[in-house]
Amino acid sequence: MYLSKLFIPILKDTPSEAKVKSHQLMLRAGMIRQSSAGIYSWLPMGFKIMKKIEQIVREEQNKIGAQELLMPTIQSAEIWKESGRYDDYGEEMLRIKDRQGKEMLYGPTNEELITEIFRSSIKSYKSLPKLLYHIQWKFRDELRPRFGVMRCKEFFMKDAYSFDLNDDEAKKSYNKMFFAYLSTFKRLGLTAIPMAADTGPIGGDVSHEFIILAETGESKIYSDKRILNIDISKHGNENNSIEDLRKKYDEFYAVTDDKFDKKIFEKKVKKENQLITKGIEVGHIFYFGDKYSKPLNCSVDLQDGKKVDVKMGSYGIGVSRLVGAIIEAKFNNNIMKWPSSVAPYEVAIIPTLQKNDNTNYLRAEKIYKSLVKSNVDVLLDDTDEHLSAKFKKFDLIGIPFQIILGSKSTDDKHEFKELNGKTEILTLEEIKKILLNKRNTN
Amino acid sequence: MYLSKLFIPILKDTPSEAKVKSHQLMLRAGMIRQSSAGIYSWLPMGFKIMKKIEQIVREEQNKIGAQELLMPTIQSAEIWKESGRYDDYGEEMLRIKDRQGKEMLYGPTNEELITEIFRSSIKSYKSLPKLLYHIQWKFRDELRPRFGVMRCKEFFMKDAYSFDLNDDEAKKSYNKMFFAYLSTFKRLGLTAIPMAADTGPIGGDVSHEFIILAETGESKIYSDKRILNIDISKHGNENNSIEDLRKKYDEFYAVTDDKFDKKIFEKKVKKENQLITKGIEVGHIFYFGDKYSKPLNCSVDLQDGKKVDVKMGSYGIGVSRLVGAIIEAKFNNNIMKWPSSVAPYEVAIIPTLQKNDNTNYLRAEKIYKSLVKSNVDVLLDDTDEHLSAKFKKFDLIGIPFQIILGSKSTDDKHEFKELNGKTEILTLEEIKKILLNKRNTN
Repeated sequence: MYLSKLFIPILKDTPSEAKVKSHQLMLRAGMIRQSSAGIYSWLPMGFKIMKKIEQIVREEQNKIGAQELLMPTIQSAEIWKESGRYDDYGEEMLRIKDRQGKEMLYGPTNEELITEIFRSSIKSYKSLPKLLYHIQWKFRDELRPRFGVMRCKEFFMKDAYSFDLNDDEAKKSYNKMFFAYLSTFKRLGLTAIPMAADTGPIGGDVSHEFIILAETGESKIYSDKRILNIDISKHGNENNSIEDLRKKYDEFYAVTDDKFDKKIFEKKVKKENQLITKGIEVGHIFYFGDKYSKPLNCSVDLQDGKKVDVKMGSYGIGVSRLVGAIIEAKFNNNIMKWPSSVAPYEVAIIPTLQKNDNTNYLRAEKIYKSLVKSNVDVLLDDTDEHLSAKFKKFDLIGIPFQIILGSKSTDDKHEFKELNGKTEILTLEEIKKILLNKRNTN
Repeated sequence: MYLSKLFIPILKDTPSEAKVKSHQLMLRAGMIRQSSAGIYSWLPMGFKIMKKIEQIVREEQNKIGAQELLMPTIQSAEIWKESGRYDDYGEEMLRIKDRQGKEMLYGPTNEELITEIFRSSIKSYKSLPKLLYHIQWKFRDELRPRFGVMRCKEFFMKDAYSFDLNDDEAKKSYNKMFFAYLSTFKRLGLTAIPMAADTGPIGGDVSHEFIILAETGESKIYSDKRILNIDISKHGNENNSIEDLRKKYDEFYAVTDDKFDKKIFEKKVKKENQLITKGIEVGHIFYFGDKYSKPLNCSVDLQDGKKVDVKMGSYGIGVSRLVGAIIEAKFNNNIMKWPSSVAPYEVAIIPTLQKNDNTNYLRAEKIYKSLVKSNVDVLLDDTDEHLSAKFKKFDLIGIPFQIILGSKSTDDKHEFKELNGKTEILTLEEIKKILLNKRNTN
């Protein structure tokens, strides 16, 4: 892509309404634009990054055998009355009357609807276990939306639901998701800690929030810092291996504010291992047994002819929020560097261009064409700005690698650097090798 | 995927509410489930097909240089008041008041919002032309939703918008989309005819509906049947070639009901070439100049310092509707056969399975594993139903190729057939060749 063609309205100044760095960066780099309070349009670069995150989330769900479907955004109020949550949910639920006066709502979550789909589709114990998920827009009518996409009204979320015969089986499903979440966040370049958490309006007995450490986070956390050393790459997705992993995490104290008990914390965690900080919630998983299946009559026939209410859990990942969360984690010293797995482009070509001399432009174009031919996703800055202005711009865009065509360039050797790294003088073939190698490790 | 694990609630009987064959098939094959009047959940198989259609639509938009972004579903009423359409749009618009009493709506289309994004981002003529699109859920509060996903309330649509300096440039953008639409429908296995059409609530001077012929369609069409012989594969996406193609289509009379004039029709089209039938609208493109840019003050600076309102067009494709439209075109004699480009799986393995003899099951599994290893997307029917029941089921599912393990199978040779075709006895390697060859021609 040529930068002059890309729809990327970069702002010179930081908009005053943006208080956290992810919100500031997303507006300045032309990733999003507010359309009304707490509601955003995703411009091409922001959209592309969000889609890459979505795809990683999807692949890790598929790996544990979850099946993707898609529920609508607008739901009937009826099933929410059946479950008893219609009145509970309060003003955050966007309530709608259609032209015939029927009570509808914009789904803030989907426990009721998936239970309705399941009960009308599955009759026998033989069809269990099942893991179903969708990635869909949700709406919560926040009174004070803030922090850009981190706490907004319309947001993109993956929510999965598990259906099992009994608690033991349900625990396996829960642990599978636990594992999938850790793998997902790892691929996104994030260290997420699962923390025992309160279940809130979803309900149930067991719950973990997945939190990435960030001073700007809204969640206060208390943890044993050794939990950060657990290496998930040693674990496969078989049940035994997942159970071992789960046990490792359970060894260490890690809770959110709601679950914090000072006495237990100080007894269990030595002073030097105590980690008290803030974080951003990027995922939340729940086990709630028959909380929804019972009122909604979602049961299956057992082998002996009896019926049993299915045991359910639900599992959320904030896909749009993750765009902001990754920025909070990676935007430092005014330089953004996207993890390669979700970067908007693999490499940028940044030439100095002079009006009376098109040597560099021709060089840049030649490199561009060769990279495109090798299926490298590349952005060429063909604008006539000064090199210093270009660098500032690319500190916002955050493409992890740069090919710089300045005074040191020759026809065969180019300045190449990884953001925050050292400049090397390399041939195009050497550069390609580095880029393709990076891609294979994602 | 093993059929016993797939979430595909197949219905034995045709639900009485379904009047057209696409609606019947989608319910029976477990592709969708109604959640309330005119609002559907997409179950895994239906979802997978819709995503494949979406991806083809996306690729053809990208090919002509359109850039993808994403606007939200919920919009503020304000910009609709600016354009003057807030009152015009009537009861089909789903109007919402948020918790603070602010007037919002669920977008039925996005001319206003994209104009707002453009006017606040682009200032100079140098940034034109621009083609922007998104693929997003829309809502129209139909009084009488019917025909399943063909006329429902919540629907998935690609809508693109073009921005140009003047009418001549705008015509090029219009023709690019014209070409992209023909390419898109061709890849979906459909013959779509562009028909001069009325502009309706979008407005403007020039408009084409893209219509596929189907007796169950809601649009009445009048055309010269020679238009069906135009071969778009001879045309590339350069402006000249596209213009030639556009001229070829303009040679033949082809209009929808609104534009029909009996006198002109009979004068222009010889009796033997007259085609009067019904069709399904799958795309609609509009050129409306400054209809939105003028009231919304969307202008750019020219070289001489003057300002000019940008000239706009809009371009829609009904992605969710296309799932139904393809069924209307391809479901015949109670057999559905998906075009390979959007088929839910590339091939099905259908074995007869006996309780006391697992020979066929082991054969089936061996073939399955070998196909998966070759990256073939395959569905194995591991249920214990009779072969005749299995065939009926697969006539609904519509996977275009079948490997049948019945009495004629040996360890090395298998019955293989293309749906509606003849059975051959082939080795697995021969079968793979046919499948991969089919994939490469999509």
